[in-house]
Amino acid sequence: MSRDNTVFVGSKPVMNYVAAIMSSLNSSGEAVVKARGRAISFAVDAVEITRKRFLKDIILDEIEIDTEEVESFDGKMKNVSTIAIVLSRPDY
Amino acid sequence: MSRDNTVFVGSKPVMNYVAAIMSSLNSSGEAVVKARGRAISFAVDAVEITRKRFLKDIILDEIEIDTEEVESFDGKMKNVSTIAIVLSRPDY
Repeated sequence: MSRDNTVFVGSKPVMNYVAAIMSSLNSSGEAVVKARGRAISFAVDAVEITRKRFLKDIILDEIEIDTEEVESFDGKMKNVSTIAIVLSRPDY
Repeated sequence: MSRDNTVFVGSKPVMNYVAAIMSSLNSSGEAVVKARGRAISFAVDAVEITRKRFLKDIILDEIEIDTEEVESFDGKMKNVSTIAIVLSRPDY
């Protein structure tokens, strides 16, 4: 799946990510919503708002969780949880 | 699935939930890890620590996300995202 379909969720207002998800679904028929650490909750919020309020027929294809090793500000490696939620449009 | 297998993740230290998940997997072969709102990130952390550090052969059967309506402190109804992660032991 191309990187163009991927929406990385961080600490911006959740409606920014909802708009990005809808844009990706409209242009390519798919969206992969990714987040790490505390932003995982916001990624789930963005997907839920998209599919419950705006695009009620989209398909929740897959949810994956995993662990990545990242370098923290003091140079130590630490583990952080990740999520990837794959959405698609049924009419695409 | 009986309520006995369910671990509700909140704001306690994450290792409390890891211990509860392992206890449920050991006693019944299954665990359903649930959380709402900001605790969703901690639920993913607890599952990832359990399966990457302690019980490396457990099966991630299913991840569901949804929205619930809850009454906030001022009496208004508001939507909150939820997650349910179903784990099982292969040898059970």
